[in-house]
Amino acid sequence: MIIAFQGVKGAYSEIAITKHFGEDAQGEGYATFEEVFDAVRDAKADFAVIPFENNVTGSISINYDLLLKSNLFIIAEVYVPIRHKLLSHPGNSLNSIKTVYSHPQALEQCRDFIKKGGFRAIPEFDTAGSAKLVKERGKSDEAAIASERCAKIYGLDILAQDIDVQKNFVTKFYVLCRKSDVPANQKGEKTLIVFRTKHYPGALVNCLQRLAKNGINLTKLESRPMPDNPGEYCFYVEFLGDEKDENVKLSLLEMGAASQFVRVLGCYPSSKNA
Amino acid sequence: MIIAFQGVKGAYSEIAITKHFGEDAQGEGYATFEEVFDAVRDAKADFAVIPFENNVTGSISINYDLLLKSNLFIIAEVYVPIRHKLLSHPGNSLNSIKTVYSHPQALEQCRDFIKKGGFRAIPEFDTAGSAKLVKERGKSDEAAIASERCAKIYGLDILAQDIDVQKNFVTKFYVLCRKSDVPANQKGEKTLIVFRTKHYPGALVNCLQRLAKNGINLTKLESRPMPDNPGEYCFYVEFLGDEKDENVKLSLLEMGAASQFVRVLGCYPSSKNA
Repeated sequence: MIIAFQGVKGAYSEIAITKHFGEDAQGEGYATFEEVFDAVRDAKADFAVIPFENNVTGSISINYDLLLKSNLFIIAEVYVPIRHKLLSHPGNSLNSIKTVYSHPQALEQCRDFIKKGGFRAIPEFDTAGSAKLVKERGKSDEAAIASERCAKIYGLDILAQDIDVQKNFVTKFYVLCRKSDVPANQKGEKTLIVFRTKHYPGALVNCLQRLAKNGINLTKLESRPMPDNPGEYCFYVEFLGDEKDENVKLSLLEMGAASQFVRVLGCYPSSKNA
Repeated sequence: MIIAFQGVKGAYSEIAITKHFGEDAQGEGYATFEEVFDAVRDAKADFAVIPFENNVTGSISINYDLLLKSNLFIIAEVYVPIRHKLLSHPGNSLNSIKTVYSHPQALEQCRDFIKKGGFRAIPEFDTAGSAKLVKERGKSDEAAIASERCAKIYGLDILAQDIDVQKNFVTKFYVLCRKSDVPANQKGEKTLIVFRTKHYPGALVNCLQRLAKNGINLTKLESRPMPDNPGEYCFYVEFLGDEKDENVKLSLLEMGAASQFVRVLGCYPSSKNA
């Protein structure tokens, strides 16, 4: 079983993988999200685990666009709290640290901690890569801002935690597979669809009414320009229910008639926001 | 007139400033978006120019959250195409370049160009900062990936253009001011509102119907968790019309009764997506 993700060993995507597939699951890192989608499409990997949303920074729209273009199907959602730690060589103390490496966004998230410590902040490509770099350089006054998992992987100690400005940073990942590999007994509590409305005023409301009148509760709604035609919009809607529920089937049939297209992108159990 | 933005001299936000206020307008850079909002609130600056959306990477949600918490008002939208260039010292040729500095996202956007050239890519905090760094280091085999504007500001030459993987990258900025400073003759072709629905099935459709039945066309719709209460959602809706139009006033009155709250965040001329 091969699980594709974007990034290097210790990335937050790998935490999502172990959370869903178990501690022993091995992920295979790719450089870009596009390569992750392609790996599953081309059967070089069985599953993809990809971030789609963060509660503070918002939707990772490029992944919605890639999903729309792909033929993959969402079979699970996984929430991973993003909690950065300061990692350095075993035995080091916080007082000895002068330089801190990490991804610019992580450095930004820990700006108060960095300022207070008077550290020199140096940007890196990603959090896990910065842990690897600190380990390899072996300098006693250097540290990385990365996940707890990176401490284990790269043999570093945690010198400081609770260093984020935002304490409730959570990223939502989707687990995807080829449509032909969706388990026959897949049971969904949530469904994600995408649709494109026809061109008349109130077309969107007309589509959403099909869900409302069948008693379906929305959990997310977002408009996105069509990747190939930025003047046209499609809508992503997540709602509570399984695509095989009678009221969902009825709504989707009605929406199919009321819209230019409607497609089910995934159907998955609801995961508690950890 | 002081115009606050996030970043350093040469940032894409500064291009938005000159596009809206004219070539001679001077921006004042702040380290974080929060500081930009605060600067206008505390009357240290008159205007803020802030990115809210990119057609590929999506909404910059943290800025919607900051806008919701602030009392600022949107008076204009500005679209800036993001077109990266390779910048180095005057007289240098592409063949002499070995190392390229930029923000990780810009390096990612130019990955094919970097791979083809066999350059060593080094992450920096931002694109403009990488141009400044290359200038200061003065090494003939180093270059930065940044805007054309940075070439002028830092006295660098453009060694290569059209180096982005995505050719139609466009960021949408809003120009904001204190509510008390909105010009009396401000005329809007677009209005951005935020509202929170009551708790019953179909509450969202009920609100959107108020717009549809008054013949109002939506241009953007997005759900966002409330910053202080991630279990609750609010909805951002942009539509064509001025808040003083009769049908808009009527819709907003009706939505006020049908929702927990509705607030107008801005009313501004429609700017052509350049």
